Amino acid sequence: MRLVAYRDGNGAEALGRVEDGTVRRLKGVDRIDRTVASAAVLDAEAETGGVALDDLTLLPVARPEKIFCVGLNYRSHVAETERELPSYPVLFPKFASNLIGAGADIVLPPESKQVDYEAELAVVIGRSGRRIDRKNALGHVLGYTICNDVTMRDFQYKSHQWMQGKAWDDSTPLGPVLVTADEIDPGALDIGLRLNGAEMQSSSTDRMIFDVAELIAVTSQFTRLEVGDVILTGTPGGVGFRRDPQVFLADGDVVEVEIGGIGTLRNTVRAEGEAR
Amino acid sequence: MRLVAYRDGNGAEALGRVEDGTVRRLKGVDRIDRTVASAAVLDAEAETGGVALDDLTLLPVARPEKIFCVGLNYRSHVAETERELPSYPVLFPKFASNLIGAGADIVLPPESKQVDYEAELAVVIGRSGRRIDRKNALGHVLGYTICNDVTMRDFQYKSHQWMQGKAWDDSTPLGPVLVTADEIDPGALDIGLRLNGAEMQSSSTDRMIFDVAELIAVTSQFTRLEVGDVILTGTPGGVGFRRDPQVFLADGDVVEVEIGGIGTLRNTVRAEGEAR
Repeated sequence: MRLVAYRDGNGAEALGRVEDGTVRRLKGVDRIDRTVASAAVLDAEAETGGVALDDLTLLPVARPEKIFCVGLNYRSHVAETERELPSYPVLFPKFASNLIGAGADIVLPPESKQVDYEAELAVVIGRSGRRIDRKNALGHVLGYTICNDVTMRDFQYKSHQWMQGKAWDDSTPLGPVLVTADEIDPGALDIGLRLNGAEMQSSSTDRMIFDVAELIAVTSQFTRLEVGDVILTGTPGGVGFRRDPQVFLADGDVVEVEIGGIGTLRNTVRAEGEAR
Repeated sequence: MRLVAYRDGNGAEALGRVEDGTVRRLKGVDRIDRTVASAAVLDAEAETGGVALDDLTLLPVARPEKIFCVGLNYRSHVAETERELPSYPVLFPKFASNLIGAGADIVLPPESKQVDYEAELAVVIGRSGRRIDRKNALGHVLGYTICNDVTMRDFQYKSHQWMQGKAWDDSTPLGPVLVTADEIDPGALDIGLRLNGAEMQSSSTDRMIFDVAELIAVTSQFTRLEVGDVILTGTPGGVGFRRDPQVFLADGDVVEVEIGGIGTLRNTVRAEGEAR
């Protein structure tokens, strides 16, 4: 099943099921967050009338209480940073207010001169749990979506802790669709990123150092994962900061993250305060 | 004004005003979080009947959406870690589910053998804002309280990012009272910590490297601060991990953090799964 979150004609949030480019609204559930049981999402009836997906203003497909970012989780990215292979996942946060929907503008704040892209597979939790075993971990996943883990590099390296480079409001697209876990093998997906049509990243999720099951086991060891929580599983090599010459996002750029079996997350970059 | 959050006789959350050891419940507002206007808290009428503070089960005095921890913010602590003085605040997260109230048990998880204490002044935001100027920053504060920023050192240093050492559920006391900003100069408070009655930390908030106004300015540059959000302003020297021999929390230990003008945050340490 493929789900989208969107704003309806009255400005309210809604969830819909996507089939052949048509979105049918779910009854009785309007967002994926910790107040919701995943069964309520998976078993919800859909309204009969449908709307064209292309006519909708999409929202971030989940509303997480917690977002776990994972750094340095592909060998090709570790290599370009000249760091050592991690022996434990490199974890840092984003906040729900950082997220935007597919099609929304990635906001370039005037304070940063080094805004970078990162293609990532995003995991959305569907069943709450603490100290989840590796072998049961994928059963806690509602589904998978796409994230562009936009990063302000000049802020990231102001300190040895990275939060201030990662947690800018309205920076981070999540979507367009959530594909439910029954349809996805998270360890075998092509993942890539294009900037203004040019390929910048290209890899497969089978090259993750810590796989999705391991990331769920590790994070749930210290804190309970709740419905709607999101794990961003890291980016492959090819980020703009590690290129020669370096590449950073600029007003008007179009960034597309594509993951096999899920789709394409497309956003335009806009300098803050600039009209569309 | 001094406020507490507590669980009433029916198990519901409540906010109360404390006067002379008696708590009178506020009408119309039951928690400090982003759904609340600070005026609703400050101007709320209190019920006439009161309950003895000592008879209440206290809850964390705020329900933050975001918790910003600040590392290495006192010279005496920077010195004991043998790190360089930071030129930008060292920021990392905790989560709301990590918090417990005054008097609740600090849970020692079986996975960690190095659970440490950290006395900290906690700032609770009362007025939402983004890119808040230093000079206006204290006007966004609802009040101040006390935190014991309990830290699992063996997990903190599993990676160069510290989240997994800081974000354990039911680890982090916040309270007992919030003292409203009109009654507090956050730059001139004695702060100390006692472990089983022995003084382990003793300093003053005038020795912070980045003061409260600066921490509000820095964090709000990248994300909007909301009512109930909490900034933990760092700990002075004397943590257990940097002592010789090292000191870690053990089942049955009593930890007291005292801050002048606010009070004492007292909690007992319990191995997870052990009965009281």
